[in-house]
Amino acid sequence: MTSAKQLRPGDTIGILGGGQLGRMLAISAAELGLKCHIFCPDENSPAFEVADKATIADYTDLHALDSFAADCFAITYEFENVPGETAERLAATSVVRPSAKALEIAQDRLSEKDFLSGSGIALASYQRIDNQNDLENALIKNGGRGVLKTRRFGYDGKGQVMIRSMTDAKTALEQLGHAPAVLEELVSFDREVSVIVARDVTGSSATYELTENVHENHVLKTSTVPANVDQKVDVAAQAIAVKIADALDYIGVMGVEMFLVKTVGGDRLLVNEIAPRVHNSGHWTQDACLTSQFEQHIRAVAGWPLGSTKRHSNVIMHNLIGDDVTGYGNVLQEPNARLHLYGKAEARPGRKMGHVNRLSPRA
Amino acid sequence: MTSAKQLRPGDTIGILGGGQLGRMLAISAAELGLKCHIFCPDENSPAFEVADKATIADYTDLHALDSFAADCFAITYEFENVPGETAERLAATSVVRPSAKALEIAQDRLSEKDFLSGSGIALASYQRIDNQNDLENALIKNGGRGVLKTRRFGYDGKGQVMIRSMTDAKTALEQLGHAPAVLEELVSFDREVSVIVARDVTGSSATYELTENVHENHVLKTSTVPANVDQKVDVAAQAIAVKIADALDYIGVMGVEMFLVKTVGGDRLLVNEIAPRVHNSGHWTQDACLTSQFEQHIRAVAGWPLGSTKRHSNVIMHNLIGDDVTGYGNVLQEPNARLHLYGKAEARPGRKMGHVNRLSPRA
Repeated sequence: MTSAKQLRPGDTIGILGGGQLGRMLAISAAELGLKCHIFCPDENSPAFEVADKATIADYTDLHALDSFAADCFAITYEFENVPGETAERLAATSVVRPSAKALEIAQDRLSEKDFLSGSGIALASYQRIDNQNDLENALIKNGGRGVLKTRRFGYDGKGQVMIRSMTDAKTALEQLGHAPAVLEELVSFDREVSVIVARDVTGSSATYELTENVHENHVLKTSTVPANVDQKVDVAAQAIAVKIADALDYIGVMGVEMFLVKTVGGDRLLVNEIAPRVHNSGHWTQDACLTSQFEQHIRAVAGWPLGSTKRHSNVIMHNLIGDDVTGYGNVLQEPNARLHLYGKAEARPGRKMGHVNRLSPRA
Repeated sequence: MTSAKQLRPGDTIGILGGGQLGRMLAISAAELGLKCHIFCPDENSPAFEVADKATIADYTDLHALDSFAADCFAITYEFENVPGETAERLAATSVVRPSAKALEIAQDRLSEKDFLSGSGIALASYQRIDNQNDLENALIKNGGRGVLKTRRFGYDGKGQVMIRSMTDAKTALEQLGHAPAVLEELVSFDREVSVIVARDVTGSSATYELTENVHENHVLKTSTVPANVDQKVDVAAQAIAVKIADALDYIGVMGVEMFLVKTVGGDRLLVNEIAPRVHNSGHWTQDACLTSQFEQHIRAVAGWPLGSTKRHSNVIMHNLIGDDVTGYGNVLQEPNARLHLYGKAEARPGRKMGHVNRLSPRA
């Protein structure tokens, strides 16, 4: 399939995954006159409610994948843990954006770090950990400290253990079920920031301004734009994001999380991880920009040009996690707040139920 | 049913009508975590693609209406020509917002004018026309000129005849199929304007700024905000819209079209017609305000408080009519434009296929 394929209004985009990101992508596609077909094994997927079609099947169901591919002019995904074989199967008969290769790199923490490092991107130091021996040797080099993370399937703090002593190290691999892992240097960062970058089929890219993020229990709590950083840092961070998108020959929206580190030589940006999809730290774009990250991703997947990333308002995004959502009535009464709810029935602890964008005029 | 009923996230709103207005209402409902059930006789309704459920049935199908009412916590509509019996049937077992009474008044041009006039709202003069005799007598009073309009089912210039001479009058009623009609005075207006007003279950109302509208072949072509009018006119127009909403004990969003007439005594506003629903001249709110008219209507129908109507940007809305839609590729390349397409397959002449909001910073 040619990578420059362009969709027309009325054509169908397939989305693997039916959570809130798939739901918001489907809404943006509809606003542009495109149809969506959601593929998700969970019959209660929030995205089904706003999609033209739904397939409820396992990601390894080849028959269902083939029917899905036949129905869709282009296929994308809302999460990076789509099995590699799934993406390859779909790519054989349809267009998959971003590519199966970008997915493959981003879904393995080690291959991602090796790729970024090989592309000249600054990272915290890391070591491959396959067994207890690897871990102990690595910790000796790191002064006995580090964050041990599984190579695959980690998100929102799941699949990681903080190590502050050799004693912590004894149970760390066991806590991760002895999964292949990476030990990351413990970075003393000043703040966590991210950039949402989009790249289209012609290789043009567009970045949104740097976002300043605050996490609570490893889950994103707030994103603030403009970030309280030097303008030079913002420019540098956007350049890093574009460099990564170019290196991956990426098509679509990608989130790039970074640490801002204060050194005697000045501010330094270290990339923490990339997400080959729309990203929670880009939800502010829905209400502060003309083009949201969701529309931007749909444009790229459709082979259309990217939209403007200009911001018309200042904004703070607050995630509504678990029971936070019970406060929706108060949010509805705030004059500067826009409420977004995901249609999830049960507010389990730690579950992302919605978010609020609070706007104020640009200074 | 109590009129103060409040929905909770996850509840279902029913919408009668599956066109672009229903589609945009359904999208706004989804963003607030509400489900939509669309009722429309046309199996190709654009709104079905973004709704949780669809009923394809005639508006007079009592069995289908009863099932629909049983599934929906509140019911609204996207067009004013819902048969009165339909609204009453639904209101017997569910909550219908705006009320069947508001609908009844607004769907008959004569009862609407009588109601407005009786509520102290300034209108162009009008006369009830049931036959040729009525018409000729009325024309004598009006200096032989006027616009003859059917009392029911007129929109976008359909169901009206311009009369400039007694000769025109001879065929006018025949052209309208001898339907009950109203003769309106020909107003020499300076410009056409409108106000979108919303009113919630507690009787609180919120208005958007005055919109300046340009029509082409009786179909809305552009809406511009801010309008090129005196600030006092804007304030007066918003007050008129609130007065009408209060008089109707209205719940939901309503469009109020007015003529701005220049007189020696100063600017004068005459109400042309009201639309008991979201309105094409309010589409600019989607991208220039935190709360769009669609979200506003859903909030009111859900029994929730209204959102802020503050505008963060200047905006011009252009309708894409018929073949205009083939230019979507150019719109996608404009940095300050946001494209909205309705998912309609066939671009028939005069058919509303989408719209574009073009933004610029507030002065």
